[in-house]
Amino acid sequence: MAAGSTPLIFVHGYWHGSWCWSEVISRVAAMGRPAAAVDMAGHGLRAVRPQCLTRRPLAPEALAAEVSPVATVDLDQAGDLLVSQIKEAGRGGPVTVVAHSMGGTVLTRAAQLVPELVAHAVYLSAFMPASDAPALAYVQMPENEGELVAPSVRADPAVIGALRLDLASDDPDYRRQLRDAFFGDVDPAVADAALGLLTPDAPLGIALGATAVTRDGWGWVPRTYITCAQDMAVRPALQQRFIRDADAAFPDNPTSVVALDSSHSPFLSMPAQVADIVAKLG
Amino acid sequence: MAAGSTPLIFVHGYWHGSWCWSEVISRVAAMGRPAAAVDMAGHGLRAVRPQCLTRRPLAPEALAAEVSPVATVDLDQAGDLLVSQIKEAGRGGPVTVVAHSMGGTVLTRAAQLVPELVAHAVYLSAFMPASDAPALAYVQMPENEGELVAPSVRADPAVIGALRLDLASDDPDYRRQLRDAFFGDVDPAVADAALGLLTPDAPLGIALGATAVTRDGWGWVPRTYITCAQDMAVRPALQQRFIRDADAAFPDNPTSVVALDSSHSPFLSMPAQVADIVAKLG
Repeated sequence: MAAGSTPLIFVHGYWHGSWCWSEVISRVAAMGRPAAAVDMAGHGLRAVRPQCLTRRPLAPEALAAEVSPVATVDLDQAGDLLVSQIKEAGRGGPVTVVAHSMGGTVLTRAAQLVPELVAHAVYLSAFMPASDAPALAYVQMPENEGELVAPSVRADPAVIGALRLDLASDDPDYRRQLRDAFFGDVDPAVADAALGLLTPDAPLGIALGATAVTRDGWGWVPRTYITCAQDMAVRPALQQRFIRDADAAFPDNPTSVVALDSSHSPFLSMPAQVADIVAKLG
Repeated sequence: MAAGSTPLIFVHGYWHGSWCWSEVISRVAAMGRPAAAVDMAGHGLRAVRPQCLTRRPLAPEALAAEVSPVATVDLDQAGDLLVSQIKEAGRGGPVTVVAHSMGGTVLTRAAQLVPELVAHAVYLSAFMPASDAPALAYVQMPENEGELVAPSVRADPAVIGALRLDLASDDPDYRRQLRDAFFGDVDPAVADAALGLLTPDAPLGIALGATAVTRDGWGWVPRTYITCAQDMAVRPALQQRFIRDADAAFPDNPTSVVALDSSHSPFLSMPAQVADIVAKLG
């Protein structure tokens, strides 16, 4: 298959779903490129919402206590699902995978499992953890100082098994913090619509999982990192840390870097630029 | 552009968004076909949610009274948006448009406006109203008897300007009715996830709008109707009525008909069959 027609698969981050890529995929499809956005394990059409959200009256304490219905989802499951999605989209041939945020952790796992089926691994302000390192370790690094996602979590992840957002909160400051965390440069109306499409629970197990990456596995796959300079979820210094760690481990296959001056969500604030970048990657 | 590479655009129905097509588009993309799902006006990334949903305590009477923030969205706006999406995806050339449910009303308008840009109009259990007839007139026809959507609306559309569903209801019978209306043959877990992705307000103006269709406009565009035999939202007899009315108006361009034994949502219950059907249509 010619490089220009290698299918593109887009993987969203925590709380998001296939919907977040629609503006990018419209433009990629207009270039004649087959592309599809998939749902990560526990997300989108695979999401399960906590029961307390459909109990009346709403009980704020239940939001902090109810064990998440996606608490059993882990990186093994998420990685295996992405491998099956790669195989379906590629029909046995390689595909280019674009991952956002926590989707990067899943991409790393899948590329390690089936490196021959990943033509190019593209990380859009995504977690690209080093060998055997869980994504959660990076969340807490000094390079991620100032991020607004962890302070937005409304239950103890160790207790409920998920990172839970209170998406129907009546607190305007909290809603503003969510917008600032994810959608700082996005049209406010679109940002509000996007908040309405998020799912409340992101399975902790994906961030706890780690992948042993090898020279003939993930280390062999061409990779590009798209940085987002105004990112308040994965901070710019942390993005550089991912690139530095990867290049130290596999200096013969260095990361190509493309810079965007965007928030965490350029697929909403500058979809044409994202489409142009990924469509050129083969 | 060769027929096999004509881009496909997928338009969802009321309350849905681009996310509902992800399983179909994965399969279409695997066939090498450029495809994209778009959001209808007032939906998906263009949705606006009523404020009462983020007020505490929740006030059920507000759900029935608050004027919808999408009350001003009408068929003119929705049709113009789809025309712009068609132009973007086709880059000046024709595209095949697949519309579900109320998306059909928007497709009819767009195809009448730019018939030369619609290679094929595909109605998946969709509203395909006759010239000058609003979709709402069909909702209330005897052929639609037994449908479960209108009884699920939780406010007077004439008062709030939208068809509002109570998606966070704590009433198990109501939640079951919503599943039966839209997702009767869909895996229950997927159906619940889909209910979580719906937006509460569908703009009434789209169903109130009508399009004067002409022989050299919509009447000239090749069309296919995919029927859904178990549909509890657009009943099978109503689907046949749409086909009958169209063929009576334009007997020289009869509707091609493909039958599925599905609920209203074959994109979730039998996505492979939907992908196979639409990919063959050029």
